[in-house]
Amino acid sequence: MTVRFAILGAGRIGQVHARAVASTAGATLVAIADPIAENAQKVAGLYGCGIRTIEAIRDSADVDAVAICTPTDTHADLIEQFARAGKAVFCEKPVDLSAARVRDCLKTVEAAGATLMVGFQRRFDPDFMALKQAIDDGAIGEVEMITLTSRDPGAPPVDYIKRSGGIFRDMTIHDFDVARWLLAEEIATVQAAASVLTDPAIKALGDYDSVNVILTTASGKHCTINNSRRATYGYDQRIEVHGSKGSVSAENHRMSRIEIANGNGYTRPPLLNFFMTRYITAYANEIAAFVAAVASGAPTPTTGYDGLKALELADAALKSAQTGNMVKLM
Amino acid sequence: MTVRFAILGAGRIGQVHARAVASTAGATLVAIADPIAENAQKVAGLYGCGIRTIEAIRDSADVDAVAICTPTDTHADLIEQFARAGKAVFCEKPVDLSAARVRDCLKTVEAAGATLMVGFQRRFDPDFMALKQAIDDGAIGEVEMITLTSRDPGAPPVDYIKRSGGIFRDMTIHDFDVARWLLAEEIATVQAAASVLTDPAIKALGDYDSVNVILTTASGKHCTINNSRRATYGYDQRIEVHGSKGSVSAENHRMSRIEIANGNGYTRPPLLNFFMTRYITAYANEIAAFVAAVASGAPTPTTGYDGLKALELADAALKSAQTGNMVKLM
Amino acid sequence: MTVRFAILGAGRIGQVHARAVASTAGATLVAIADPIAENAQKVAGLYGCGIRTIEAIRDSADVDAVAICTPTDTHADLIEQFARAGKAVFCEKPVDLSAARVRDCLKTVEAAGATLMVGFQRRFDPDFMALKQAIDDGAIGEVEMITLTSRDPGAPPVDYIKRSGGIFRDMTIHDFDVARWLLAEEIATVQAAASVLTDPAIKALGDYDSVNVILTTASGKHCTINNSRRATYGYDQRIEVHGSKGSVSAENHRMSRIEIANGNGYTRPPLLNFFMTRYITAYANEIAAFVAAVASGAPTPTTGYDGLKALELADAALKSAQTGNMVKLM
Amino acid sequence: MTVRFAILGAGRIGQVHARAVASTAGATLVAIADPIAENAQKVAGLYGCGIRTIEAIRDSADVDAVAICTPTDTHADLIEQFARAGKAVFCEKPVDLSAARVRDCLKTVEAAGATLMVGFQRRFDPDFMALKQAIDDGAIGEVEMITLTSRDPGAPPVDYIKRSGGIFRDMTIHDFDVARWLLAEEIATVQAAASVLTDPAIKALGDYDSVNVILTTASGKHCTINNSRRATYGYDQRIEVHGSKGSVSAENHRMSRIEIANGNGYTRPPLLNFFMTRYITAYANEIAAFVAAVASGAPTPTTGYDGLKALELADAALKSAQTGNMVKLM
Repeated sequence: MTVRFAILGAGRIGQVHARAVASTAGATLVAIADPIAENAQKVAGLYGCGIRTIEAIRDSADVDAVAICTPTDTHADLIEQFARAGKAVFCEKPVDLSAARVRDCLKTVEAAGATLMVGFQRRFDPDFMALKQAIDDGAIGEVEMITLTSRDPGAPPVDYIKRSGGIFRDMTIHDFDVARWLLAEEIATVQAAASVLTDPAIKALGDYDSVNVILTTASGKHCTINNSRRATYGYDQRIEVHGSKGSVSAENHRMSRIEIANGNGYTRPPLLNFFMTRYITAYANEIAAFVAAVASGAPTPTTGYDGLKALELADAALKSAQTGNMVKLM
Repeated sequence: MTVRFAILGAGRIGQVHARAVASTAGATLVAIADPIAENAQKVAGLYGCGIRTIEAIRDSADVDAVAICTPTDTHADLIEQFARAGKAVFCEKPVDLSAARVRDCLKTVEAAGATLMVGFQRRFDPDFMALKQAIDDGAIGEVEMITLTSRDPGAPPVDYIKRSGGIFRDMTIHDFDVARWLLAEEIATVQAAASVLTDPAIKALGDYDSVNVILTTASGKHCTINNSRRATYGYDQRIEVHGSKGSVSAENHRMSRIEIANGNGYTRPPLLNFFMTRYITAYANEIAAFVAAVASGAPTPTTGYDGLKALELADAALKSAQTGNMVKLM
Repeated sequence: MTVRFAILGAGRIGQVHARAVASTAGATLVAIADPIAENAQKVAGLYGCGIRTIEAIRDSADVDAVAICTPTDTHADLIEQFARAGKAVFCEKPVDLSAARVRDCLKTVEAAGATLMVGFQRRFDPDFMALKQAIDDGAIGEVEMITLTSRDPGAPPVDYIKRSGGIFRDMTIHDFDVARWLLAEEIATVQAAASVLTDPAIKALGDYDSVNVILTTASGKHCTINNSRRATYGYDQRIEVHGSKGSVSAENHRMSRIEIANGNGYTRPPLLNFFMTRYITAYANEIAAFVAAVASGAPTPTTGYDGLKALELADAALKSAQTGNMVKLM
Repeated sequence: MTVRFAILGAGRIGQVHARAVASTAGATLVAIADPIAENAQKVAGLYGCGIRTIEAIRDSADVDAVAICTPTDTHADLIEQFARAGKAVFCEKPVDLSAARVRDCLKTVEAAGATLMVGFQRRFDPDFMALKQAIDDGAIGEVEMITLTSRDPGAPPVDYIKRSGGIFRDMTIHDFDVARWLLAEEIATVQAAASVLTDPAIKALGDYDSVNVILTTASGKHCTINNSRRATYGYDQRIEVHGSKGSVSAENHRMSRIEIANGNGYTRPPLLNFFMTRYITAYANEIAAFVAAVASGAPTPTTGYDGLKALELADAALKSAQTGNMVKLM
């Protein structure tokens, strides 16, 4: 079966997913939708697909699956519409900034019997997959403590931050999902601290740019997360997992593999500077995994439930950062 | 001026300090005291010093300075005795497991006008000193977030743990001191989580083997500490400091600098496995710094106050781990 | 201008180039030729191009450029045919195993005024390009000594070796080209040593599996090359360039960026194991560079002359290895 | 048995060996000799030994062993004198710049039945020892190809070069010894190339500053050596050994283990800049090995024969560099 695909939204991430679909064996890109004609035409030109409205795609018999790449505040509605229309739905996180709205949406999807995959691309990064595989192979024994480091080269524009739901729901949410994935056990308690160190404008919005979180499971495993909206050396994305028989870590991606030595020392290039470059293979793998699930009828590797749990952790972390107290989730 | 030195206690750490004194220009080892004659004779034989009782050393006119290397529960009393006797005193952390007792002791020292250095050897490790120098040179701008990783190859014997004051006062205390040193700002709040993951015997003692701590300063800087009593790959001691203009980190010490490549991959040796081997140069530098301070009359680089503050952070972390709530120190 | 492309030969390297053409902006794949129908159909199916005979392609008005991916002994004839037919020609090294035949062929190409690019894909590897850029930017001053390490995971089949022209013409030839590229000065003398250490079957063919070469330029710069047909840890491809103001090196490509630590030490995965995987991006860049040159009429970045010079170095190295004496090229 | 030691020459290397003797269990430093009273007094003051003339030491009943740390042109005579006087002799390489003179000297030593160790400190470096141990443990199978990189931060003074015997006898000689040690098979042929790239004054002396050597054993194993008198990033000392089952390499020693990351990339400090700092532990281990051999009567780990063989390789390399032809040693 070839999965016939449409992309809703031809912006930055929509273009990434269009390319992924076009290069995935077993999938074909049928249509693109975007209110900005120029964006839609660009994708249509590159991959030879049609241009349709969202409504037309929803009603198209020749579309099996869609990727929702529209603004966050439209996600939940579109998921519901397309689930009811019998389409398999892929949606980038988050489903919604409100956990209540997400729960409602997931009920609708369940009632419709539709397939929904909420995208957490880091699970599909080849290096992180190799790390997970090492854990699953028993290379480090029982997981005990995880350290996740995620630092952005710089803060997003103020307009973006305003609509982002705050750093925990926008940025740390990826780390919450990685924590759940690697701990393989639900989180029992959350402790968090948050500051503004890079830009007073972020403080003025009531948001943070520097956060640290301790997650603890019922069995006492820990995961700490440190996030900053500033990293002069590039997009910093590291995982370290400590276990009873050893540790496993995943390194960053540099701009190249050269090293220059002189009187100042030995210098390797900075990191890749942009999440789309850094995770380009992860995005492609993610779409391929969705296509495989749709084609085979198997469950998707990440689900609406994963999206909900990560959001609940973000809400809990925000509350802990505001009060100083531990928040219990179980 | 040559500083005439005596060592109280010829056990493991006493022997390390005896060697350090013997090889420090400007210091001479006059006497060793130990109730176990064999230990005292070993040191006397190696370095050609006399054997005296603690009381005799206290009353010796030819001793300017002592290093207290006796069991923890004798530290405060000995500090007070030797301070009153007009000797300069070096004491390995902790002064005492009770912060109240430490405060009393420091008052006595102050009243006596004596010199007291409480040892935190990590500040004298060449790599950590290079890291601190890089910060002081402005290489990373303003310090924002610190990650301290300290993992022991294995838990100490149960008998040791019983008298240790618990992991926060015994192990994490070193990280608390490093945090204060590198943040260059006092800690305002402490959040901690603690578990037993390696050995039920530790739980039976009411102690922990796996802890994570978030320290926050008044200006919003963070330091996180992760400690484990288990590390199959050796004695893991890392520092990473993230600042407004860059980051600086210090690597571990391996058993050797070789790497073997074969079908299993590229393998470098495990880490040095014992804190005395790992910090052998730091211990020597520490004694040299004390000798230099005594000889010149300058303040010691680490003080009784530093010992007290680290202990207070340990107490706060324990309380936070037990309650889940943030503990305020200011 | 869109460059209309055909591929001669749908084997392993033909498939790599077909994919490269299909994904290069400004190029379109018009036709594939292969005596094995199945191979041709595979490429035609993947990229939607036609299937034609070599002769038909040569006479096609809708083909501007070809990539010759047929067996080595057909290269020179096909280059001449297509040059005379007015096509731009890309050919993987070598043009021929005989330097005299190559010289004749290049004369024919010149007489026809045709564009010819002989492929040395390493020049298009992103890491090696970054290394070259660092040199050109003056980061290491004047180049003085280069060390090239190229080791294959294993020897090719005996049948391949028989037709390969020997290790210098088959394997070291790539290093000779890299040496010329990085030295930016022609080689004056060649000294070489060669052994058989991995497989007596190679000795029986009169070939070698382990070679070391010293190249020296007129100004006294050195380049050493070490090659082995055996490397248990993967496909080993390193460059180190030492200059008057510093050094620059390029690291290998590992299977993933993880590292596992345990009692055996710290282990990172082996290297990518196959030259096509290792150089997949280089091959794509190489075709893109050819397409750009054809479209613009600019000279190709590597030429028939480069192919000839590398072959002459291979011939000289073989002679030196056989006699022990230095061979002069100038 | 305590080995009673005297040092002939209190210059740079004499001081290093004096410290080594003083800190070696089983050895005691009895006397120092140096025509410059100030140097002798410095050593005597530091280690509490006597000051005697060379002749007095030779005739002293309370001296078992000497380390010859005088200028090279006195080595052979002193070795002979002290061997005849029944002392065990340690001498830094070279015994003499003339292989004929070395052969004569070794005959005299043999006739006297004396113990002679010619120092090649690299064999006693902990990292190189770990590398050798890995080979001996079978970790890489049969040794096939070795790459030795030795680069000095800068050329020695012209006056030193004049008396040095040239780069092959002064600098590469250490690599020749390492090659013999690691190949565990004598060298059959030598091919070398040499240039002057750093300073015309070196050319004026008929010497070189940049050399590459290929050594081949009878069984076809290779070792290549690259040397430069210039390295802006410090004292570069690397070994890589490639074998039938894997490879093993030894890394350089940096000034510290920190790394700074910023917009310029990730920078680690330069290498230790001076051979005495770099090999301080090797020198201590070397003396300890000599002391152990003297005390036990066992053969010394490096011998006069090792000194001779390394010198013969240096002579052969010089001849090959001058003629371009391979020089056969067997």
